[in-house]
Amino acid sequence: MIVVKVGGSEGIDLGAVCRDVAALLGQGQRLVLVHGGSHRTNEVAAALGHPPEFLTSVSGYTSRRTDRETLRIFEMVYCGEVNKGIVEMLQAEGVNAVGLSGLDGRLLEGRRKDTLKVIENGRRRVIRDDYTGTVETVNANLLNLLLDNGYLPVLTPPAISTGNEAMNVDGDRAAAMVAAALKASQLIILSNVPGLLREFPDESTLIRHIDPTRAQEAMEHAQGRMRIKVLGAVEAIQQGVGQVVFGDARIASPIQAALAGQGTVIG
Amino acid sequence: MIVVKVGGSEGIDLGAVCRDVAALLGQGQRLVLVHGGSHRTNEVAAALGHPPEFLTSVSGYTSRRTDRETLRIFEMVYCGEVNKGIVEMLQAEGVNAVGLSGLDGRLLEGRRKDTLKVIENGRRRVIRDDYTGTVETVNANLLNLLLDNGYLPVLTPPAISTGNEAMNVDGDRAAAMVAAALKASQLIILSNVPGLLREFPDESTLIRHIDPTRAQEAMEHAQGRMRIKVLGAVEAIQQGVGQVVFGDARIASPIQAALAGQGTVIG
Repeated sequence: MIVVKVGGSEGIDLGAVCRDVAALLGQGQRLVLVHGGSHRTNEVAAALGHPPEFLTSVSGYTSRRTDRETLRIFEMVYCGEVNKGIVEMLQAEGVNAVGLSGLDGRLLEGRRKDTLKVIENGRRRVIRDDYTGTVETVNANLLNLLLDNGYLPVLTPPAISTGNEAMNVDGDRAAAMVAAALKASQLIILSNVPGLLREFPDESTLIRHIDPTRAQEAMEHAQGRMRIKVLGAVEAIQQGVGQVVFGDARIASPIQAALAGQGTVIG
Repeated sequence: MIVVKVGGSEGIDLGAVCRDVAALLGQGQRLVLVHGGSHRTNEVAAALGHPPEFLTSVSGYTSRRTDRETLRIFEMVYCGEVNKGIVEMLQAEGVNAVGLSGLDGRLLEGRRKDTLKVIENGRRRVIRDDYTGTVETVNANLLNLLLDNGYLPVLTPPAISTGNEAMNVDGDRAAAMVAAALKASQLIILSNVPGLLREFPDESTLIRHIDPTRAQEAMEHAQGRMRIKVLGAVEAIQQGVGQVVFGDARIASPIQAALAGQGTVIG
């Protein structure tokens, strides 16, 4: 069992990812696909006159400001355009994909943050109307039900809160929770860089291997979006996932390349 | 087993529909929900600078002009905003809903029209790049798998073509195919009018009952969008659905009202 997360950044070749999923399923691999949609969400939000904003938490993580209108646009892009676009591509590759959000069957459930403590222009500020949270439980029964019946689950945020509200969650950390719940041997996290970079965006500074017992150290190297990626990887390994690989989604056969150790291997 | 279709026109109270679904499930009713999203698609398409266009076929049916860009917007609204909005509302009512499009698991599959023959300004014209078609088969296995495991399927167009392309299909006729495939006793079609009207939009001209053997006659009364609704009803009954009711989605308990015979009953 492997879980593949493909990001939503510019430059990612979703067609190559879908072809690779089909090839792996043909080899008998059991697989769940998780995806993002951040770049298109930025574009659509801007086009609809509700431009994206990003927050930096007091602990240094960056997240999308998700008011109710952003959540609506987020669902349009992640669950509509991107999820159904991937399902259509997979169906054309002969894969009987089923696209689902974390709301559907409470696949991704967790706690919404009552307040976000952020740093804005050097000052602390508290935000109360943000629909953001963290996945705490995964409905592995529904994923296994689909897998056992020949369907490939294609999963995307948002998640559902314990109070039944849709909420934005980090896709990498959600994929880590899915991998843990399904007892996956590997979690492959694909983005538009070759892996974790010691000096982002210099691709020649690729970190080839991180010892999970020394992940805290790697966190210090990780910058921006990469920090949350390392956090997700550490969480996955702490919960029993054998290995996490950060791979490049801009190349041919991106999943098989990552499985062969191309990228940053943790574990 | 009943299939409920709720339209996407203005004035529909989706909250009341969701509360009624929860009440019926509480009574042990087996149910599938199908929905539309036309009004919001018009609004979002206009906001994104790709305003909606409608075509009239040579046989007198009206349909949305669905070029590839419209299909993308259609998926954003139907599969993203509306589908996930309904799933969120149902989850808040304690219903473990799973939102799916016709692409997912090939739930709604059919033939894409190679060409559309339309009337434009009194002239015939042929359109070749339209993503529109008709549902021919329904994946009843996947719907029953979800139902048997305690999930409520919430189904929306688009469908998938035999050539693996997403395509716009009429939601009412899709619901009729779903009702037939699931051997439903009743198909309830809810919209923003009390039922079929002899003189649209005069609500005092509500047709209370149509004998299915005389449906052709009713087709002559039906105008605009109502024509395709009658066609869907006739198809459902021809395929073994016991009864079709056109009901009002603007009232409290709209499904239970329709089941009690409020609206236009066919069969």
